[in-house]
Amino acid sequence: MHFQITTEYLDALKEAISAGNDAYINNLLQELHASDIAEIFNELDLEESKFVYKHLDDEEAGKVLVEMDEDVRERFLASLTSKEIAEQFIDNMESDDAADVISELPDNVQNEVLSHIEDADQASDIVDLLNYDENTAGGLMAKELVKVNLNKTMLDCVRELRAHADEIKHIYAIYVVDDDDKLVGLISLKKVLTTSLRSPIRAVFNTEIISVKTNTDAEEAAKVMEKYDLVVLPVIDAIGRLVGRITIDDVIDVIRKEETEDVQKMGGMEVLDEPYMTMPFWPLIKKRAGWLVILFIGETFTATAMSFFEDQIAKAVVLALFVPLIISSGGNTGSQASTLIIRSLALGEVTIKEWWRIIKKELLVGFMLGLILGCIGFIRIALWTRIFKNVYGEHWLAVAFTVGSSLIGVVLWGNLSGSILPIILKKAGRDPAVSSAPFVATLVDVTGLVIYFSVATLMLKGILL
Amino acid sequence: MHFQITTEYLDALKEAISAGNDAYINNLLQELHASDIAEIFNELDLEESKFVYKHLDDEEAGKVLVEMDEDVRERFLASLTSKEIAEQFIDNMESDDAADVISELPDNVQNEVLSHIEDADQASDIVDLLNYDENTAGGLMAKELVKVNLNKTMLDCVRELRAHADEIKHIYAIYVVDDDDKLVGLISLKKVLTTSLRSPIRAVFNTEIISVKTNTDAEEAAKVMEKYDLVVLPVIDAIGRLVGRITIDDVIDVIRKEETEDVQKMGGMEVLDEPYMTMPFWPLIKKRAGWLVILFIGETFTATAMSFFEDQIAKAVVLALFVPLIISSGGNTGSQASTLIIRSLALGEVTIKEWWRIIKKELLVGFMLGLILGCIGFIRIALWTRIFKNVYGEHWLAVAFTVGSSLIGVVLWGNLSGSILPIILKKAGRDPAVSSAPFVATLVDVTGLVIYFSVATLMLKGILL
Repeated sequence: MHFQITTEYLDALKEAISAGNDAYINNLLQELHASDIAEIFNELDLEESKFVYKHLDDEEAGKVLVEMDEDVRERFLASLTSKEIAEQFIDNMESDDAADVISELPDNVQNEVLSHIEDADQASDIVDLLNYDENTAGGLMAKELVKVNLNKTMLDCVRELRAHADEIKHIYAIYVVDDDDKLVGLISLKKVLTTSLRSPIRAVFNTEIISVKTNTDAEEAAKVMEKYDLVVLPVIDAIGRLVGRITIDDVIDVIRKEETEDVQKMGGMEVLDEPYMTMPFWPLIKKRAGWLVILFIGETFTATAMSFFEDQIAKAVVLALFVPLIISSGGNTGSQASTLIIRSLALGEVTIKEWWRIIKKELLVGFMLGLILGCIGFIRIALWTRIFKNVYGEHWLAVAFTVGSSLIGVVLWGNLSGSILPIILKKAGRDPAVSSAPFVATLVDVTGLVIYFSVATLMLKGILL
Repeated sequence: MHFQITTEYLDALKEAISAGNDAYINNLLQELHASDIAEIFNELDLEESKFVYKHLDDEEAGKVLVEMDEDVRERFLASLTSKEIAEQFIDNMESDDAADVISELPDNVQNEVLSHIEDADQASDIVDLLNYDENTAGGLMAKELVKVNLNKTMLDCVRELRAHADEIKHIYAIYVVDDDDKLVGLISLKKVLTTSLRSPIRAVFNTEIISVKTNTDAEEAAKVMEKYDLVVLPVIDAIGRLVGRITIDDVIDVIRKEETEDVQKMGGMEVLDEPYMTMPFWPLIKKRAGWLVILFIGETFTATAMSFFEDQIAKAVVLALFVPLIISSGGNTGSQASTLIIRSLALGEVTIKEWWRIIKKELLVGFMLGLILGCIGFIRIALWTRIFKNVYGEHWLAVAFTVGSSLIGVVLWGNLSGSILPIILKKAGRDPAVSSAPFVATLVDVTGLVIYFSVATLMLKGILL
């Protein structure tokens, strides 16, 4: 039903290109959707791309360009003149896509391309859109829309619609504005088709309209569309005038980007601005080293903590053997807990007001998980002692009790830290996703050591210590 | 603009409810969108909800029900009779929403509700939809759609549209079918409005149509809509007959769910089937304990690994102090690497074919990160020796070199493991997200210890060992 590039397919295509087989290429492009052609471009080298692109009509070319991978597009456009870019791509694109493509170009090329755009309205729309921050509703919106004055009739509405049908890919609604161009409502296409053409707009339009401002955060605009199940969202300026509209496909990109940022933070690094493969070496190091160094410095406190217990370790080396096991169990449990809470906060399933319910729940869960791991730890030591005679010395039972009960404490503590930390961060107005698995693990490592050696000192006094 | 519940707002509402102030409630409901009313229901207790719901008209009631939190809806419906559920909610809902709500009810209640639905077509549609797995396109689709035979005219198309306008919330396209009810194309509403009513369908319809089958995976259907920028996607059965359509709002839910599953796996646990807050105690323990126990067992190998180096630790207790620092650095770097690769694979930014490029990149990145942490580790030991006289013994320089060079090795190794593991999992047909931060950390902990003590044995021979 839909398209997947296979190696054979690509080989046949590359052969047709190198043979200059125009008929083959035309036939192929005829059959495919612009998104599929873009996927093919992602796999071709520059010369091949240029050969194929000459077979696209201008409208299709614009669509393909938008769907290409960013790095491929960048390379491809760099090989064209500003005039070619303007006339063969930008002229036929919707304003939001055009602005996105132009914003990726080097500054001097941007101006050249803009000067070559034939349609003055299109050029002015793009210049306008380039002014908005890309993380706002203004940065997401397109200028093309169909609007009709409140005092007109449905017939005017249909005329307006027909006049703009060519330039707008998908029309989902006609917006109703007053004499000052302020947005006051909308008419769905369904309504247009089911209402008499003589009806005054005023009598039939829907006043329940949801809109955002140009400076509304892009993630916020996405949340609004998601909450109200909208496919298109009008954007107004500071005084309520209709200036553009956001479509759902752009919002899905915002959602994907937002999720990527959360995941990267939760992986213990800064958010990358580019896809992994195109991220250059030094910027990538910078994004990763920052948090790694912070975590490393946090983790040096484990060396400090352990040096307090150096005498105990010297007397009972067996204690050192279980250090990684115990602290990692706390870290793993904490990582689970923080992941759960971060995600639930992001989806709005829990709110920070519920902190006490979360803590109560996680205290019980943590204790139970600690009990499970503690028992397994105890059994492991008992079993090994039986199998590998004397591997943990004559006081193995005391060691097993120490390890088992430390595990309960450390896991309980790790679980609690992991669940509280995101709530504290959120409360402090920070992003909860920063309480990443590595961050929680580092915190729990230091305290876990203190718990372990304190339990050991208590339980092994007079036996091993 | 859009709505946010405040405490004051809620307090005033609750007061109006307990005073039985019908006018206040009617006025409030008049103003609000169904999604907002649903948010209010999430905050009310059962008695209050029942009072408010009596003020909703049947159509609005259905919309509100769909938007409520799952646990709130469950509690609310449990307080109504099957007849009330059928007549006041289900009768006026679109088939996909109705099927979703009914599927959440206990089995015996499901049948009762179905028997009370007045519209026989609606009941049959719902029964039909309940048969599909909820993770397939069939489980996502609604049955309501507008279709027209290939041999009719645009006038028939408009008539068909008007006949169905009431029952379908949003119409984005009219589907064209042949005499066997097989899907052959579509007509956009824009086309209907800009084409003469006398035109035969055959002459104007769009044959470039993308569809999925009822048994297509839901995530796959979401990917198709995302790739081709669709707001509605037709669903066909095994022999190509049109049976339903999926709208973009349902797909956004699929995307969110998919992301949640990935995040939970990356946090080192099994995917929860329910929101965190409604997840009962024992099932939650089960979802979390499974991976924790596996990781714990993996981590017991650290005890085994360390017992091989027990003599070295006994001779040079100072070595034990840096164990947590060194292994956690490997784990943190590995966690970053696996996060990056898992996410890039999920977004399709990298493919497993590019494994060699990834390894080359990560070898360099890992070495550089290792060098940075190694230097900081070296400086830390040197500094502490200067400040806290003799804290790491007379051979502190040899210890510092051992720790520094171990860090380079462990970080490099952690980074490599973290980046390769998701690729191996993907290649093996498993979900790369399983190579979670805790999973990578556990793997790196064991090998990290071996690297550290091997370096130590080599560098400290004749000095401390």
